[in-house]
Amino acid sequence: MNQQMTEYINLINTRLQKAVNDTPLNTNLEESMRYSLDAGGKRLRPLLVLLTLHTLNEDVYQGVETALALEMIHTYSLIHDDLPAMDNDDYRRGKLTNHKVYGEWKAILAGDALLTKAFEIISTDSKLAPETKVQLLARLSQASGHRGMVGGQVLDMQSENADIDLETLQQIHRAKTGALLKFAVMAAVDIAQPTTEIAQALEAYSEHLGLMFQIKDDLLDVYGDQDKLGKAVGSDVTNHKSTYVSLLGKEGAEEKLQYEADSAYRNLEILQPQYDTSHLNEIIQLFIQRDH
Amino acid sequence: MNQQMTEYINLINTRLQKAVNDTPLNTNLEESMRYSLDAGGKRLRPLLVLLTLHTLNEDVYQGVETALALEMIHTYSLIHDDLPAMDNDDYRRGKLTNHKVYGEWKAILAGDALLTKAFEIISTDSKLAPETKVQLLARLSQASGHRGMVGGQVLDMQSENADIDLETLQQIHRAKTGALLKFAVMAAVDIAQPTTEIAQALEAYSEHLGLMFQIKDDLLDVYGDQDKLGKAVGSDVTNHKSTYVSLLGKEGAEEKLQYEADSAYRNLEILQPQYDTSHLNEIIQLFIQRDH
Repeated sequence: MNQQMTEYINLINTRLQKAVNDTPLNTNLEESMRYSLDAGGKRLRPLLVLLTLHTLNEDVYQGVETALALEMIHTYSLIHDDLPAMDNDDYRRGKLTNHKVYGEWKAILAGDALLTKAFEIISTDSKLAPETKVQLLARLSQASGHRGMVGGQVLDMQSENADIDLETLQQIHRAKTGALLKFAVMAAVDIAQPTTEIAQALEAYSEHLGLMFQIKDDLLDVYGDQDKLGKAVGSDVTNHKSTYVSLLGKEGAEEKLQYEADSAYRNLEILQPQYDTSHLNEIIQLFIQRDH
Repeated sequence: MNQQMTEYINLINTRLQKAVNDTPLNTNLEESMRYSLDAGGKRLRPLLVLLTLHTLNEDVYQGVETALALEMIHTYSLIHDDLPAMDNDDYRRGKLTNHKVYGEWKAILAGDALLTKAFEIISTDSKLAPETKVQLLARLSQASGHRGMVGGQVLDMQSENADIDLETLQQIHRAKTGALLKFAVMAAVDIAQPTTEIAQALEAYSEHLGLMFQIKDDLLDVYGDQDKLGKAVGSDVTNHKSTYVSLLGKEGAEEKLQYEADSAYRNLEILQPQYDTSHLNEIIQLFIQRDH
């Protein structure tokens, strides 16, 4: 990561730590919310919001609350995914999962509260016009609800132990992980309001990024380093899940990863030379090379 | 209930049935969401939104989407409350709970999706101005999140098997059930924008209603009719929960119920004669007399 990215990630981390304050109710609910927010996420989604604004020559501070909201939605989805009734994971990113520390019922409620908080911090954002906030809230709820992330998670759970084809696999991941990554880029587009041509190029870029993310995830689950990942590898095979690796083989998955990367680069070329896309180019590199 | 109320409830039920459409993802997630939405709720919260608008001489159709969103939030909270990790209830309103029909993981996700959908339908409401939508979304997220309903639920769970005083009990229920009932009335205030005096009287009215609701709930749990309630009575005693009945006795709880009702009536008097408060008066009666 370059220095600008590190700066933005520090900004996100600092603001996230302050985003959930204790209430007079005096429970440790907020502690459990912060526990998962602070549990070492890569911050790719909020970073992408800020970098897209940066690329479009906008004040990135306009997007900070939206970026935090997005990370809260991502975090809540991980807390619920890890529950015994779902993936039943004890560790994530090398730390105990929320329900292992705070118990199952509080983990469910911490997830609910983070999801709700995401909508609160956008709707109370003093930097954005009401029209923009409404657009962001509509986009975020659509990306994360039954037509987006939650729907994709259901489809993913139902596909365990089932033979699915590549088309279905893409459909799952377009909803489950793709929708939030697309939101990250398109939230910045909603704020910056560039031309339709630029908006469409960025939308295509975000879709290719989403596919790259999942292909890489599948590769890491088989060939990744357990210590760097902070979780056990091989869970897809154990859970009999169809993945890009099981459907295409290692080489086929790597080829597809490179193909999606090339498509992402090509879409960024549409922004040049008007905009300097070096940070967004670097994100593609990061998605190819990440080891956790 | 009078005829106007019945008409509004029919409107709510009709619109709720159409509010969650299937998606191309082709899972039964939407079916499970509709199952709980259709499971015979009294619709008190959405009814209160429409009746308050009616009282303020506003077009009630302006508040329909907000009313549906509120019922979705209420419904999601019941799905999650019923989970094995929480209250572990098999029946609600005489029907199997969501997780008994669809399984635990899908019930968690159906709840998540309903919560998310609530914010979607307000943010995409074509009848309201962006400023109003933002105000409603901020109010709804604050009422239902860690400072409101979810926080109250945590406090409630932590108070099982614990001796708590009346002040703590009120604090729990102001957050757990009071916040959404207050939202119902204040959402209509956000839309209608009456004078500050009227807004404050309605706010106080809604707070007294919230307390009434919980006192009556506690009375019904001991003295209610199991068949009418559609669930087992006596669960508060079984779960060693402090209630208005356990703290004040039957007579004391009934006296407090009447006291809160009187306070609610007095606040409605402030609206008269400018506004006809007969529907809102009737709601107080309904809260006293309900048997389920």
